[in-house]
Amino acid sequence: MLPVTFNDVAAAARRVAPHVHRTPVLRSRRLNDILGADIFLKCENLQRIGAFKARGAHNAVLALTDEQAARGVVTHSSGNHAAALSLAAATRGIRADIVMPENAPRAKVESVRRLGGQITMCEPTIAAREAAAAAIVASTGGTLVHPYDDPHVIAGQGTAAVEFLDECPDLDAITAPVGGGGLMAGTAIAARHICPSIRIVATEPEQADDAWRSWSSGSWTAGDPPNTVADGLRTTIGHNGLPILRALLDDFATVSEASIVEAMRLVWETTKLVIEPSSAVPVAALLERKGGMQGKRVGVILTGGNVDLDKLPWQ
Amino acid sequence: MLPVTFNDVAAAARRVAPHVHRTPVLRSRRLNDILGADIFLKCENLQRIGAFKARGAHNAVLALTDEQAARGVVTHSSGNHAAALSLAAATRGIRADIVMPENAPRAKVESVRRLGGQITMCEPTIAAREAAAAAIVASTGGTLVHPYDDPHVIAGQGTAAVEFLDECPDLDAITAPVGGGGLMAGTAIAARHICPSIRIVATEPEQADDAWRSWSSGSWTAGDPPNTVADGLRTTIGHNGLPILRALLDDFATVSEASIVEAMRLVWETTKLVIEPSSAVPVAALLERKGGMQGKRVGVILTGGNVDLDKLPWQ
Repeated sequence: MLPVTFNDVAAAARRVAPHVHRTPVLRSRRLNDILGADIFLKCENLQRIGAFKARGAHNAVLALTDEQAARGVVTHSSGNHAAALSLAAATRGIRADIVMPENAPRAKVESVRRLGGQITMCEPTIAAREAAAAAIVASTGGTLVHPYDDPHVIAGQGTAAVEFLDECPDLDAITAPVGGGGLMAGTAIAARHICPSIRIVATEPEQADDAWRSWSSGSWTAGDPPNTVADGLRTTIGHNGLPILRALLDDFATVSEASIVEAMRLVWETTKLVIEPSSAVPVAALLERKGGMQGKRVGVILTGGNVDLDKLPWQ
Repeated sequence: MLPVTFNDVAAAARRVAPHVHRTPVLRSRRLNDILGADIFLKCENLQRIGAFKARGAHNAVLALTDEQAARGVVTHSSGNHAAALSLAAATRGIRADIVMPENAPRAKVESVRRLGGQITMCEPTIAAREAAAAAIVASTGGTLVHPYDDPHVIAGQGTAAVEFLDECPDLDAITAPVGGGGLMAGTAIAARHICPSIRIVATEPEQADDAWRSWSSGSWTAGDPPNTVADGLRTTIGHNGLPILRALLDDFATVSEASIVEAMRLVWETTKLVIEPSSAVPVAALLERKGGMQGKRVGVILTGGNVDLDKLPWQ
């Protein structure tokens, strides 16, 4: 029995629908020509807070009992989950405590503040972040919402694939990037249930291939320290996500840093969409002709669009 | 009697519908907060060839008789119209001769070549461009399709507003930028017919305000040489476009270069859409609180997304 089932994803889809965008699916003839496949782009970069993370955070917050909700939610994150949880808490009218490292990008800090999150700064180490979050939980009794390994978060991230396959029921393959594995696990659960024969392909930077190593070997490994431009994928595969990927993936492609940057720029140029480097990872797999997707109708989840416009990776 | 009527726009809408995208209308809560209005973005940056120009070019090419079509089409352009006319000619299976200045950006030249346009290079002066195009017309008998003052082009550009007001029938105002005036004229004709009471607002860079001067004074003037980051708007208002703007506009706002760059970046950040500087001009008017659009439901036509990603204006 996997830690998240399709029923969980279906419940999440009903729960989050009033609060998140049903994002558009876009296409580009020129992108198809270059990638050698018929590409459908699910634009989670156009999601609220600019990333799919709004889905999992809303599901986790909306699934709380009233009693739990009254005590608020807590997380530690320097990325999109921090903004997503702040937004979801505001949706329910409850408190969100966000532990952020002192070196978090200013734009991310401002985004959390704008959305009403209560920020606690800490030293930029995992140990300091976890200790600060634990201290808040001990004092408020709030619920810790893990950025990617919480089962409600995994189920919530799967709602993008539910919408995707509702709009494009005849995809041959579906692909997304893996960081902590929440999106990929939720996607795999939804896609395997809705389209049992669909090819499900995970993608990851070679320079942050802990999930690929864990998936290949069958046992959890943190791998080498990640060193990738895809800042959203520097996390380590979660213990709930891994068994789901082991059970449901057809293939797992890793890609070079050069391909990620090339794919990111290619998407900007051909589709006029701002995507962050993490979003470009499955496109890079198509560029590298990995994952067995050539000539197929391929659904790609573009995960987010939160980039520093002063520091683009091709400059 | 204006040189283009709503019947022309309606005919264009039927003609181009199978060949151009019905582009999405997107929104952003944060953009609304900053601009102080309820903004609807018609995403012509997601149009084929990355700009609304695909509409006018298709209408002009598809309106040719078979006899005219057999002799091909001709234009001179260093911008989006060159790619648009190449694409439209390919759609009909006819020849397109494109005169381009030797200093045209390489990406634009490659785009025309990829779409099958026959390129003739010339010196980078208007006189040389017109002479080269005239020579081709004399030799092939092809039809010259002017980038913005051709009545079929004006009618074709108006089809974006037809779709826009079909999807968002209760807009209070609609706004677009003015370069040669083809889009603004077509938009005004469509909007005034479909929503007689809608507020129609033209926008232009202060540093390229020939259309504003002509509109204000009532007589055509080329103004000072344009000097704006909005490269799509460096053209001069057309003789067919001007009387349409004089007859139908409610207001005409000009904006600073600083506002254009700020608005462009704001749209990238809040909507995750790549827009070119010209697209940012109506957004800049909203930033500057010009045009009488505060607190209203405002439709903005985002005209295109073809930018040089190596040279962004805020860098």
